[in-house]
Amino acid sequence: MDTLKSKIQAEGQVLSDQVLKVDAFLNHQIDPSLMGEIGDEFARRFADAGVTKIVTIEASGIAPAIMTGLKMGVPVIFARKHQSLTLTDNLLTSTVYSFTKRVESTIAISMTHLSSDDHVLIIDDFLANGKAAQALISIIQQAGASIAGLGIVIEKSFQVGRQELEKQGYRVESLARVKSLEGGQVTFVE
Amino acid sequence: MDTLKSKIQAEGQVLSDQVLKVDAFLNHQIDPSLMGEIGDEFARRFADAGVTKIVTIEASGIAPAIMTGLKMGVPVIFARKHQSLTLTDNLLTSTVYSFTKRVESTIAISMTHLSSDDHVLIIDDFLANGKAAQALISIIQQAGASIAGLGIVIEKSFQVGRQELEKQGYRVESLARVKSLEGGQVTFVE
Repeated sequence: MDTLKSKIQAEGQVLSDQVLKVDAFLNHQIDPSLMGEIGDEFARRFADAGVTKIVTIEASGIAPAIMTGLKMGVPVIFARKHQSLTLTDNLLTSTVYSFTKRVESTIAISMTHLSSDDHVLIIDDFLANGKAAQALISIIQQAGASIAGLGIVIEKSFQVGRQELEKQGYRVESLARVKSLEGGQVTFVE
Repeated sequence: MDTLKSKIQAEGQVLSDQVLKVDAFLNHQIDPSLMGEIGDEFARRFADAGVTKIVTIEASGIAPAIMTGLKMGVPVIFARKHQSLTLTDNLLTSTVYSFTKRVESTIAISMTHLSSDDHVLIIDDFLANGKAAQALISIIQQAGASIAGLGIVIEKSFQVGRQELEKQGYRVESLARVKSLEGGQVTFVE
Protein backbone atom coordinates (compact mmCIF):
# COMPACT_ATOMS: atom_id res chain seq x y z
CA MET A 1 0.00 0.00 0.00
CA ASP A 2 1.88 2.99 -1.40
CA THR A 3 0.39 5.79 0.72
CA LEU A 4 1.33 3.88 3.86
CA LYS A 5 4.88 3.19 2.66
CA SER A 6 5.34 6.86 1.77
CA LYS A 7 4.08 7.87 5.19
CA ILE A 8 6.51 5.47 6.87
CA GLN A 9 9.42 6.88 4.83
CA ALA A 10 8.39 10.47 5.51
CA GLU A 11 7.39 10.31 9.17
CA GLY A 12 8.69 7.04 10.63
CA GLN A 13 11.77 7.14 12.83
CA VAL A 14 14.22 4.26 12.94
CA LEU A 15 15.26 4.00 16.59
CA SER A 16 17.40 0.88 16.11
CA ASP A 17 17.75 -2.07 13.74
CA GLN A 18 14.70 -3.53 15.51
CA VAL A 19 12.49 -0.57 16.38
CA LEU A 20 10.50 1.64 14.01
CA LYS A 21 8.66 4.52 15.67
CA VAL A 22 5.48 5.60 13.92
CA ASP A 23 4.04 7.74 16.71
CA ALA A 24 3.34 10.49 14.19
CA PHE A 25 0.45 8.69 12.47
CA LEU A 26 -0.28 5.28 14.06
CA ASN A 27 0.83 4.66 17.66
CA HIS A 28 0.25 7.98 19.40
CA GLN A 29 -0.94 10.59 16.93
CA ILE A 30 -3.26 8.94 14.41
CA ASP A 31 -3.99 10.06 10.86
CA PRO A 32 -7.73 9.31 10.46
CA SER A 33 -7.69 9.65 6.67
CA LEU A 34 -4.85 7.11 6.36
CA MET A 35 -6.72 4.81 8.75
CA GLY A 36 -9.75 5.11 6.45
CA GLU A 37 -7.63 4.00 3.48
CA ILE A 38 -6.22 1.14 5.55
CA GLY A 39 -9.76 0.05 6.42
CA ASP A 40 -10.71 0.14 2.73
CA GLU A 41 -7.70 -1.99 1.82
CA PHE A 42 -8.27 -4.66 4.48
CA ALA A 43 -11.97 -4.78 3.55
CA ARG A 44 -11.01 -5.28 -0.10
CA ARG A 45 -8.49 -8.04 0.64
CA PHE A 46 -10.83 -9.97 2.94
CA ALA A 47 -14.05 -9.20 1.06
CA ASP A 48 -14.78 -12.85 0.24
CA ALA A 49 -13.46 -14.36 3.48
CA GLY A 50 -16.81 -14.58 5.29
CA VAL A 51 -15.68 -12.41 8.20
CA THR A 52 -18.29 -11.99 10.97
CA LYS A 53 -16.15 -10.21 13.55
CA ILE A 54 -12.88 -8.33 13.87
CA VAL A 55 -10.61 -8.81 16.88
CA THR A 56 -7.75 -6.51 17.79
CA ILE A 57 -5.79 -5.54 20.90
CA GLU A 58 -5.71 -2.21 22.71
CA ALA A 59 -4.59 0.46 22.06
CA SER A 60 -2.94 0.93 18.66
CA GLY A 61 -4.93 -1.78 16.91
CA ILE A 62 -8.24 -0.05 17.53
CA ALA A 63 -8.03 2.67 14.85
CA PRO A 64 -7.26 0.39 11.87
CA ALA A 65 -9.68 -2.25 13.21
CA ILE A 66 -12.62 0.13 13.61
CA MET A 67 -12.15 1.52 10.09
CA THR A 68 -12.07 -2.02 8.70
CA GLY A 69 -15.16 -2.93 10.73
CA LEU A 70 -16.98 0.10 9.37
CA LYS A 71 -16.19 -0.88 5.77
CA MET A 72 -17.02 -4.56 6.28
CA GLY A 73 -20.12 -3.95 8.40
CA VAL A 74 -19.00 -6.19 11.28
CA PRO A 75 -18.41 -5.53 15.00
CA VAL A 76 -14.92 -5.04 16.43
CA ILE A 77 -13.71 -6.46 19.74
CA PHE A 78 -10.56 -5.17 21.34
CA ALA A 79 -8.77 -7.49 23.74
CA ARG A 80 -7.98 -5.73 27.00
CA LYS A 81 -4.53 -5.76 28.55
CA HIS A 82 -5.63 -4.24 31.81
CA GLN A 83 -8.21 -5.20 34.37
CA SER A 84 -11.44 -3.22 34.36
CA LEU A 85 -14.23 -3.10 36.89
CA THR A 86 -16.79 -3.76 34.15
CA LEU A 87 -14.86 -6.52 32.38
CA THR A 88 -15.00 -9.30 34.94
CA ASP A 89 -16.95 -12.36 33.94
CA ASN A 90 -16.64 -15.07 31.31
CA LEU A 91 -13.12 -14.05 30.40
CA LEU A 92 -10.96 -15.87 27.91
CA THR A 93 -7.33 -15.00 28.56
CA SER A 94 -3.84 -15.50 27.19
CA THR A 95 -0.44 -14.06 28.08
CA VAL A 96 1.76 -12.02 25.77
CA TYR A 97 5.20 -10.51 26.14
CA SER A 98 5.53 -7.06 24.61
CA PHE A 99 8.99 -6.24 23.32
CA THR A 100 8.29 -2.50 23.04
CA LYS A 101 6.86 -2.30 26.55
CA ARG A 102 9.10 -4.95 28.12
CA VAL A 103 6.31 -6.46 30.16
CA GLU A 104 4.36 -9.68 30.08
CA SER A 105 0.67 -8.98 30.23
CA THR A 106 -2.52 -10.96 30.30
CA ILE A 107 -4.95 -10.09 27.53
CA ALA A 108 -8.63 -10.85 27.87
CA ILE A 109 -11.82 -11.02 25.83
CA SER A 110 -15.26 -11.67 27.24
CA MET A 111 -16.73 -14.81 25.72
CA THR A 112 -20.07 -12.98 25.66
CA HIS A 113 -18.97 -11.45 22.37
CA LEU A 114 -17.37 -14.41 20.59
CA SER A 115 -19.02 -17.71 19.68
CA SER A 116 -18.33 -20.82 17.63
CA ASP A 117 -20.34 -19.24 14.79
CA ASP A 118 -17.80 -16.47 14.38
CA HIS A 119 -15.21 -16.30 11.61
CA VAL A 120 -12.69 -13.78 12.87
CA LEU A 121 -10.36 -11.34 11.14
CA ILE A 122 -7.48 -10.31 13.42
CA ILE A 123 -6.23 -6.75 12.83
CA ASP A 124 -3.13 -5.30 14.45
CA ASP A 125 -0.79 -2.36 13.96
CA PHE A 126 2.46 -4.37 13.98
CA LEU A 127 3.57 -7.94 13.36
CA ALA A 128 7.09 -8.69 14.59
CA ASN A 129 7.70 -11.94 16.49
CA GLY A 130 3.96 -12.66 16.42
CA LYS A 131 3.46 -12.94 20.19
CA ALA A 132 0.38 -10.69 20.26
CA ALA A 133 -1.12 -12.44 17.23
CA GLN A 134 -0.58 -15.88 18.77
CA ALA A 135 -2.24 -14.75 22.01
CA LEU A 136 -5.26 -13.48 20.07
CA ILE A 137 -5.43 -16.76 18.11
CA SER A 138 -5.39 -18.68 21.40
CA ILE A 139 -8.32 -16.67 22.76
CA ILE A 140 -10.34 -17.00 19.56
CA GLN A 141 -9.76 -20.75 19.57
CA GLN A 142 -10.82 -20.98 23.23
CA ALA A 143 -14.12 -19.41 22.13
CA GLY A 144 -14.48 -22.11 19.48
CA ALA A 145 -14.45 -19.51 16.70
CA SER A 146 -12.50 -19.87 13.46
CA ILE A 147 -9.93 -17.52 11.97
CA ALA A 148 -10.29 -15.88 8.56
CA GLY A 149 -6.80 -14.42 8.61
CA LEU A 150 -4.67 -11.59 9.92
CA GLY A 151 -4.53 -8.03 8.62
CA ILE A 152 -1.36 -6.24 9.68
CA VAL A 153 -0.56 -2.57 9.10
CA ILE A 154 3.24 -2.86 9.37
CA GLU A 155 5.09 -6.15 9.28
CA LYS A 156 8.72 -6.49 10.32
CA SER A 157 9.52 -9.18 7.80
CA PHE A 158 12.98 -9.73 9.31
CA GLN A 159 11.33 -11.21 12.42
CA VAL A 160 9.66 -14.61 12.62
CA GLY A 161 6.01 -13.62 13.09
CA ARG A 162 4.71 -14.11 9.55
CA GLN A 163 6.73 -17.26 8.97
CA GLU A 164 5.30 -18.99 12.04
CA LEU A 165 1.74 -17.89 11.31
CA GLU A 166 1.97 -19.17 7.75
CA LYS A 167 3.44 -22.45 9.01
CA GLN A 168 0.27 -22.80 11.11
CA GLY A 169 -1.80 -22.24 7.97
CA TYR A 170 -3.01 -18.70 8.59
CA ARG A 171 -3.43 -16.11 5.87
CA VAL A 172 -1.42 -12.95 6.63
CA GLU A 173 -2.06 -9.71 4.72
CA SER A 174 0.38 -6.95 5.60
CA LEU A 175 0.04 -3.47 4.07
CA ALA A 176 3.72 -2.58 4.49
CA ARG A 177 6.41 -5.25 4.80
CA VAL A 178 9.63 -3.90 6.26
CA LYS A 179 12.64 -5.89 5.06
CA SER A 180 15.24 -4.05 7.12
CA LEU A 181 15.83 -1.08 9.40
CA GLU A 182 19.60 -1.32 9.13
CA GLY A 183 21.67 1.85 8.79
CA GLY A 184 18.72 3.91 9.97
CA GLN A 185 16.94 3.25 6.65
CA VAL A 186 13.56 1.63 6.08
CA THR A 187 13.62 -0.79 3.16
CA PHE A 188 10.52 -2.72 2.10
CA VAL A 189 10.03 -6.23 0.75
CA GLU A 190 9.43 -5.89 -3.01
CA MET B 1 -28.61 11.39 20.15
CA ASP B 2 -31.48 8.93 19.86
CA THR B 3 -29.67 5.95 18.29
CA LEU B 4 -27.13 6.05 21.11
CA LYS B 5 -29.80 6.28 23.81
CA SER B 6 -31.69 3.36 22.27
CA LYS B 7 -28.48 1.33 22.17
CA ILE B 8 -27.80 2.10 25.85
CA GLN B 9 -31.34 1.02 26.78
CA ALA B 10 -31.13 -2.14 24.70
CA GLU B 11 -27.58 -3.32 25.41
CA GLY B 12 -26.27 -1.40 28.43
CA GLN B 13 -26.12 -3.20 31.79
CA VAL B 14 -26.61 -1.35 35.04
CA LEU B 15 -24.11 -2.93 37.44
CA SER B 16 -24.86 -0.55 40.33
CA ASP B 17 -26.24 2.95 40.93
CA GLN B 18 -22.84 4.23 39.78
CA VAL B 19 -21.69 1.84 37.05
CA LEU B 20 -23.12 1.40 33.56
CA LYS B 21 -21.53 -1.36 31.50
CA VAL B 22 -21.54 -0.75 27.74
CA ASP B 23 -19.05 -3.44 26.76
CA ALA B 24 -21.42 -4.61 24.02
CA PHE B 25 -20.85 -1.57 21.77
CA LEU B 26 -18.32 0.90 23.24
CA ASN B 27 -15.84 -0.36 25.84
CA HIS B 28 -14.93 -3.85 24.64
CA GLN B 29 -16.96 -4.79 21.60
CA ILE B 30 -17.38 -1.70 19.40
CA ASP B 31 -20.16 -0.97 16.93
CA PRO B 32 -18.34 0.76 14.04
CA SER B 33 -21.53 2.07 12.44
CA LEU B 34 -22.64 3.69 15.70
CA MET B 35 -19.14 5.17 16.10
CA GLY B 36 -19.51 6.63 12.60
CA GLU B 37 -22.76 8.33 13.62
CA ILE B 38 -21.10 9.59 16.80
CA GLY B 39 -18.26 11.05 14.73
CA ASP B 40 -20.79 12.77 12.46
CA GLU B 41 -22.59 14.27 15.44
CA PHE B 42 -19.46 15.60 17.17
CA ALA B 43 -18.23 17.02 13.85
CA ARG B 44 -21.60 18.77 13.40
CA ARG B 45 -21.63 20.22 16.92
CA PHE B 46 -18.05 21.51 16.76
CA ALA B 47 -18.07 22.44 13.04
CA ASP B 48 -17.46 26.15 13.68
CA ALA B 49 -15.15 25.76 16.69
CA GLY B 50 -11.86 26.02 14.76
CA VAL B 51 -10.63 22.61 15.91
CA THR B 52 -7.10 21.72 14.71
CA LYS B 53 -6.57 18.54 16.71
CA ILE B 54 -8.49 15.93 18.72
CA VAL B 55 -7.11 14.53 21.95
CA THR B 56 -8.46 11.42 23.67
CA ILE B 57 -7.20 8.77 26.07
CA GLU B 58 -6.58 5.09 25.44
CA ALA B 59 -8.34 2.73 24.96
CA SER B 60 -12.11 3.38 24.76
CA GLY B 61 -11.80 6.99 23.60
CA ILE B 62 -10.00 6.04 20.41
CA ALA B 63 -12.96 4.75 18.36
CA PRO B 64 -15.23 7.81 18.78
CA ALA B 65 -12.21 10.14 18.46
CA ILE B 66 -10.94 8.63 15.21
CA MET B 67 -14.39 8.81 13.62
CA THR B 68 -14.68 12.46 14.63
CA GLY B 69 -11.19 13.16 13.31
CA LEU B 70 -12.09 11.53 10.00
CA LYS B 71 -15.19 13.72 9.62
CA MET B 72 -13.43 16.94 10.72
CA GLY B 73 -10.22 16.24 8.79
CA VAL B 74 -7.91 16.70 11.79
CA PRO B 75 -5.35 14.40 13.47
CA VAL B 76 -6.16 12.50 16.66
CA ILE B 77 -3.74 12.03 19.56
CA PHE B 78 -4.41 9.44 22.21
CA ALA B 79 -2.83 9.98 25.61
CA ARG B 80 -1.01 6.89 26.79
CA LYS B 81 -1.58 5.41 30.22
CA HIS B 82 1.28 2.96 29.98
CA GLN B 83 4.96 3.35 29.28
CA SER B 84 6.15 2.42 25.81
CA LEU B 85 9.67 1.95 24.51
CA THR B 86 8.95 4.31 21.61
CA LEU B 87 7.17 6.99 23.65
CA THR B 88 10.02 8.35 25.72
CA ASP B 89 10.98 11.94 25.05
CA ASN B 90 9.34 15.35 25.41
CA LEU B 91 6.51 13.94 27.47
CA LEU B 92 3.79 16.06 29.04
CA THR B 93 2.20 14.13 31.89
CA SER B 94 -0.63 14.28 34.39
CA THR B 95 -2.05 11.82 36.90
CA VAL B 96 -5.59 10.47 36.91
CA TYR B 97 -7.49 8.14 39.21
CA SER B 98 -9.74 5.69 37.40
CA PHE B 99 -12.82 4.68 39.35
CA THR B 100 -13.61 1.72 37.09
CA LYS B 101 -10.05 0.39 37.24
CA ARG B 102 -9.30 1.49 40.81
CA VAL B 103 -5.80 2.62 40.01
CA GLU B 104 -4.04 5.95 39.76
CA SER B 105 -2.15 6.20 36.51
CA THR B 106 0.09 8.68 34.77
CA ILE B 107 -1.10 9.70 31.34
CA ALA B 108 1.30 11.12 28.80
CA ILE B 109 1.35 12.93 25.47
CA SER B 110 4.47 13.76 23.50
CA MET B 111 4.77 17.52 23.02
CA THR B 112 6.03 16.77 19.51
CA HIS B 113 2.40 16.54 18.44
CA LEU B 114 0.84 19.50 20.30
CA SER B 115 1.79 23.17 19.98
CA SER B 116 0.53 26.58 21.07
CA ASP B 117 -1.12 26.93 17.65
CA ASP B 118 -3.47 24.03 18.37
CA HIS B 119 -7.12 24.41 19.30
CA VAL B 120 -8.06 21.07 20.77
CA LEU B 121 -11.29 19.11 20.97
CA ILE B 122 -11.20 16.52 23.75
CA ILE B 123 -13.22 13.36 23.02
CA ASP B 124 -13.89 10.64 25.58
CA ASP B 125 -16.24 7.72 26.05
CA PHE B 126 -17.44 8.65 29.55
CA LEU B 127 -17.65 11.74 31.74
CA ALA B 128 -18.30 11.00 35.41
CA ASN B 129 -16.27 12.86 38.03
CA GLY B 130 -14.20 14.45 35.28
CA LYS B 131 -10.80 13.22 36.48
CA ALA B 132 -9.66 12.00 33.05
CA ALA B 133 -10.92 15.18 31.37
CA GLN B 134 -9.09 17.37 33.88
CA ALA B 135 -5.87 15.42 33.33
CA LEU B 136 -6.17 15.90 29.55
CA ILE B 137 -6.86 19.63 30.04
CA SER B 138 -3.74 19.89 32.19
CA ILE B 139 -1.58 18.29 29.49
CA ILE B 140 -3.05 20.44 26.71
CA GLN B 141 -2.41 23.58 28.79
CA GLN B 142 1.18 22.45 29.46
CA ALA B 143 1.63 22.38 25.67
CA GLY B 144 0.32 25.97 25.48
CA ALA B 145 -2.58 24.86 23.30
CA SER B 146 -6.17 26.08 23.74
CA ILE B 147 -9.31 24.03 24.25
CA ALA B 148 -12.29 24.13 21.91
CA GLY B 149 -14.45 21.97 24.15
CA LEU B 150 -15.20 18.43 25.21
CA GLY B 151 -17.22 15.85 23.30
CA ILE B 152 -18.47 13.05 25.53
CA VAL B 153 -20.28 9.91 24.38
CA ILE B 154 -21.99 9.09 27.71
CA GLU B 155 -22.22 11.54 30.59
CA LYS B 156 -23.18 10.49 34.10
CA SER B 157 -25.00 13.70 34.89
CA PHE B 158 -25.44 12.68 38.55
CA GLN B 159 -21.69 13.06 39.07
CA VAL B 160 -19.81 16.35 39.23
CA GLY B 161 -17.74 16.20 36.02
CA ARG B 162 -19.82 18.46 33.77
CA GLN B 163 -20.58 20.95 36.54
CA GLU B 164 -16.90 21.49 37.31
CA LEU B 165 -15.88 21.73 33.66
CA GLU B 166 -18.59 24.31 32.98
CA LYS B 167 -17.53 26.26 36.07
CA GLN B 168 -14.07 26.45 34.47
CA GLY B 169 -15.67 27.83 31.31
CA TYR B 170 -15.41 24.77 29.05
CA ARG B 171 -18.05 23.78 26.54
CA VAL B 172 -19.26 20.20 27.12
CA GLU B 173 -21.27 18.35 24.47
CA SER B 174 -22.54 14.96 25.63
CA LEU B 175 -24.45 12.67 23.28
CA ALA B 176 -26.28 10.80 26.05
CA ARG B 177 -26.78 12.34 29.49
CA VAL B 178 -27.62 9.74 32.13
CA LYS B 179 -29.65 11.23 34.94
CA SER B 180 -29.82 8.11 37.09
CA LEU B 181 -29.01 4.40 37.22
CA GLU B 182 -31.17 3.80 40.29
CA GLY B 183 -33.27 0.66 40.49
CA GLY B 184 -31.29 -0.89 37.66
CA GLN B 185 -32.90 1.54 35.20
CA VAL B 186 -31.19 4.03 32.92
CA THR B 187 -33.00 7.36 32.82
CA PHE B 188 -31.77 10.25 30.70
CA VAL B 189 -31.73 14.01 31.27
CA GLU B 190 -34.56 15.45 29.15
